[in-house]
Amino acid sequence: MHQGIGFIQDLAVVMAIAGIVTVLFHRLKQPVVLGYIAAGVIIGPYTPPFQLIHDEQTIQTMGELGVVFLMFSLGLEFSLRKLFQVGATAIVAALSEIVLMLWLGYEIGQAFGWAAMDSLFLGAILAISSTTIIVKALADLGVKREPFAQLVFGILIVEDILGIAMLVLLGGIAQTGELSPAIAFVTLGKLLLFMVVSLVVGILVVPRVLAYVARSGSDEMLLVSVLGFCFGFCLLVVKLDYSIALGAFLIGAIMAESRHLHRIEHLVAPLRDAFSAIFFVTIGLMLNPLVLVDYAWPIAVISVAVVLGKLVSCGLGTFLAGRDGRTAMRVGMTVSQIGEFSFIIASLGLTLKVTSGFLYPIAVTVSAITTLTTPYLIRIADPLSQRLARAMPPSVANVFGMYSQWLRALMPRSDGGPTLFSLTKRIVVQIAVNLALVSAIFIGVSYGARYAAPFIAQWVADERIQRVVLWSAALVLAMPFLVAVWRKTQSLALLLAEVSVQPEKAGRFTRATRRAIAELVPVISMIGVFVLVAALSGTILPPTGFLIGVLVCAALLTMLLWRWCVKIHASMQIALRETFDERPDA
Amino acid sequence: MHQGIGFIQDLAVVMAIAGIVTVLFHRLKQPVVLGYIAAGVIIGPYTPPFQLIHDEQTIQTMGELGVVFLMFSLGLEFSLRKLFQVGATAIVAALSEIVLMLWLGYEIGQAFGWAAMDSLFLGAILAISSTTIIVKALADLGVKREPFAQLVFGILIVEDILGIAMLVLLGGIAQTGELSPAIAFVTLGKLLLFMVVSLVVGILVVPRVLAYVARSGSDEMLLVSVLGFCFGFCLLVVKLDYSIALGAFLIGAIMAESRHLHRIEHLVAPLRDAFSAIFFVTIGLMLNPLVLVDYAWPIAVISVAVVLGKLVSCGLGTFLAGRDGRTAMRVGMTVSQIGEFSFIIASLGLTLKVTSGFLYPIAVTVSAITTLTTPYLIRIADPLSQRLARAMPPSVANVFGMYSQWLRALMPRSDGGPTLFSLTKRIVVQIAVNLALVSAIFIGVSYGARYAAPFIAQWVADERIQRVVLWSAALVLAMPFLVAVWRKTQSLALLLAEVSVQPEKAGRFTRATRRAIAELVPVISMIGVFVLVAALSGTILPPTGFLIGVLVCAALLTMLLWRWCVKIHASMQIALRETFDERPDA
Repeated sequence: MHQGIGFIQDLAVVMAIAGIVTVLFHRLKQPVVLGYIAAGVIIGPYTPPFQLIHDEQTIQTMGELGVVFLMFSLGLEFSLRKLFQVGATAIVAALSEIVLMLWLGYEIGQAFGWAAMDSLFLGAILAISSTTIIVKALADLGVKREPFAQLVFGILIVEDILGIAMLVLLGGIAQTGELSPAIAFVTLGKLLLFMVVSLVVGILVVPRVLAYVARSGSDEMLLVSVLGFCFGFCLLVVKLDYSIALGAFLIGAIMAESRHLHRIEHLVAPLRDAFSAIFFVTIGLMLNPLVLVDYAWPIAVISVAVVLGKLVSCGLGTFLAGRDGRTAMRVGMTVSQIGEFSFIIASLGLTLKVTSGFLYPIAVTVSAITTLTTPYLIRIADPLSQRLARAMPPSVANVFGMYSQWLRALMPRSDGGPTLFSLTKRIVVQIAVNLALVSAIFIGVSYGARYAAPFIAQWVADERIQRVVLWSAALVLAMPFLVAVWRKTQSLALLLAEVSVQPEKAGRFTRATRRAIAELVPVISMIGVFVLVAALSGTILPPTGFLIGVLVCAALLTMLLWRWCVKIHASMQIALRETFDERPDA
Repeated sequence: MHQGIGFIQDLAVVMAIAGIVTVLFHRLKQPVVLGYIAAGVIIGPYTPPFQLIHDEQTIQTMGELGVVFLMFSLGLEFSLRKLFQVGATAIVAALSEIVLMLWLGYEIGQAFGWAAMDSLFLGAILAISSTTIIVKALADLGVKREPFAQLVFGILIVEDILGIAMLVLLGGIAQTGELSPAIAFVTLGKLLLFMVVSLVVGILVVPRVLAYVARSGSDEMLLVSVLGFCFGFCLLVVKLDYSIALGAFLIGAIMAESRHLHRIEHLVAPLRDAFSAIFFVTIGLMLNPLVLVDYAWPIAVISVAVVLGKLVSCGLGTFLAGRDGRTAMRVGMTVSQIGEFSFIIASLGLTLKVTSGFLYPIAVTVSAITTLTTPYLIRIADPLSQRLARAMPPSVANVFGMYSQWLRALMPRSDGGPTLFSLTKRIVVQIAVNLALVSAIFIGVSYGARYAAPFIAQWVADERIQRVVLWSAALVLAMPFLVAVWRKTQSLALLLAEVSVQPEKAGRFTRATRRAIAELVPVISMIGVFVLVAALSGTILPPTGFLIGVLVCAALLTMLLWRWCVKIHASMQIALRETFDERPDA
């Protein structure tokens, strides 16, 4: 019983001091998160009385569990449905914020003469706002249900996804030292493919299994299953060389589609609270107050840059996407801080040993400062926008007013039935998802080939025949999705033919042209799909002769199993839609 | 981000396999706990495929957190109020069970030719039944609210306390190799003192602080405060050389008196479920199936001994305490297994390196077997007691019947006002609690003297004066409680004088004798208290001359501050009673 005493002592120190300091911070009406960080500084090695932690490694590991639970909870609050609803405005605002802040951070770093990698990480650290702080501040001010708050949540969701992409890209850049557009494209493509496939497969499987477990009525079993999925998926993600934060976020987003979302949130909340407290304390542990004195000047500049940069970029993005000036001002003021994502990015830099030691404490301090200012900024947003409106010269106000009018005229009217745009959009999305699944199957089989090869070798000696077996297996697995791609492409081609060929112009060729388009487009697309698949499965692609044979067999098989393929795919699609349409139980 | 990957991988393996196996066990309608242990065996190093855990040390540490949360939850379910209610029957039944099983286990160990320490630990392992398994089995059978179940819960509470005492004694025996009655007496006395003082001080402080924190409405802050208290107290307990299990249990029992008990239980449940799952998995990890084959014979004997021994000892104890045969049979059948406490005792033996390696797997296997049989035993209790009643020879039945009648005649009637017994009992308890606090203050100051001495030495050079200062400080601190002891002893003496001196016998001396008793008893008691205090604070007791001076000053001070002392004590007593009388919020 006396093995883990050192660890228990550490945990006792962390929890006891965190408890006292947070109660104090709450009394002073300051965010609890700052209390945790302050507790970490007190406990840490840089401040008196002395180093209170014995086994820092284990506490760090606990803190990493905090990141897992934090990102998992963020995922649970993420929802594809909500993402579709907030739509364009959130994307425009988040994109303009991230791009401007990345650039601003990089330029500031360069101006202070820091290394390129430090400057790049500074940009990334400044790019993403803090969901935790914003949710807390909006709830405290009692404005969580107002329309601008909903828009902010949409922006935060988009930011989370872009932040994940940034984590992956930064990891790549840190390892290779540079970012060629081609590599960025491939990296992001792979990430997108991985996310789409995980979401589709995950949403098909996980909520069903959880519903089965939940039927037992045992919270304990549900929790253990949720944690099993969570850590299991994180492990898979880590094995694929992505960050554990991405894994936790994705599996959270998958479980967000479960009917038992609220029960899961309830069960995970104490784990998240306990371990994220430890995570924030470990952030404080690393904070050397002396560094802050040395870097007071950069800290001040960066803090101002965060507030002004986010206000301008996100506010302007919101305005350009068609919201009024007051909403834009409130949105800009709300997102004007950095938080947990910045810590994750900063610690990524430290772990990969590409950033200097001073970047982390700077990030933490800037986060603390901007967190403290956030509630005040949200509160002055309205008076400020009124005063600005009054102080604005009439000519400028006119330009703004005209822009709004022009944008409103441009927007598609959302009344009436499905438009051509919405119809094609839907088919395109369906084709893309099916293509993603096909790609994933071929990549997966190619990847698994090295493990399967020894087993197949026992039966078939010829290396070419081995390839035939593997490639055929992938083809059979992918068949339902290929059939779906073919059918959706046909519908799309018909639609395109109808719209693009106008009888007034094509005259008597109308019918023939339309028919040519409707029949040629699917065939050409399938050739494109074949080229894509062949490229993806290069390592297991059979030699040409064999390949033709396989394709002919596959064609025959497809004709035979056509109805079965359609049925399989339809039932999967229905299952997916059912899971989406189900609202979580209250 | 990639530091703790090994650990995340371990956690993923543990959680994923635990999830799958428990769902399977639930499907087969077997206890989830067995699923965890089975998962541990699968993951463990002794079974194929291979060792799946990389960092066993960290997983073991997590498992110890499981023990903390398990014992903490047990403490939350413990309640002094409930303990007073179940009263004598539970104590008799639990005592007879523990004593018989200790003896039986020891004898079995000796019969198999095991070492004395192994035999002793086997006895301790068999002594305590499993709260977790019993609560689960009774809930599954739908008999949780029946009177016999309430009695079983009472027995479990008494067992928990006696089990804690046993842990402390075993620790002492393991270190010294023997148990002299004097050492046992001192050990148990110190334990009792520690428990009483912790409970009184804890119940005065902890629920009030938690109520203050709870008013913020933040679950996160409440949880962090609860964990801060929990681990902080565990740390204190470990520093005093008690087991962490005792600390977690005690702080749980203290929080059980909080108004926010249900909120706390709700917040801690996921932590308990997650970490106790890991704890049970670590038990499976240590299980070598080959050992079980070697020790099949002892396992069979011990399993039968557990079922029959507990049935007879606990059932007989229940019957002797005045319950009917049917209830006795049901109680005996319900407690016929061993569980988490046995694992804790077995791992104590391993940690202290006083038991052989085979004891642990035997304990786990016997627990698994008896856990599996428990639900069936509870179910056959009723039919069996009916059949026994029919098969019993009339003469035996007669003896039993007469015993029951005799016992009922003996019982004090519980109607009417307070009896002399209940009145004196109350005063005696109050005196004991106050004496415990006085003792704790003097012991605490003596203990703290070595740390305070250097500071005092800066002001006073003379070592004798230092003692005067320290001892006076302790006396002043203890004054309200000493005054309370004096006043309660006075009331008790008056009561005793009234009862013990009957006018019929004492005649005309009645009044004088009564007065003599009423005045002498408190004085003699206070002299006894002084001797006790002097003995406890030997290291800081001033030399006689100084001591008399201190005592005279103290007497004067006491007279001056008499009213203030009485007020302080009264308000503490009221605060304590308030906390007790408050029911937790629904």
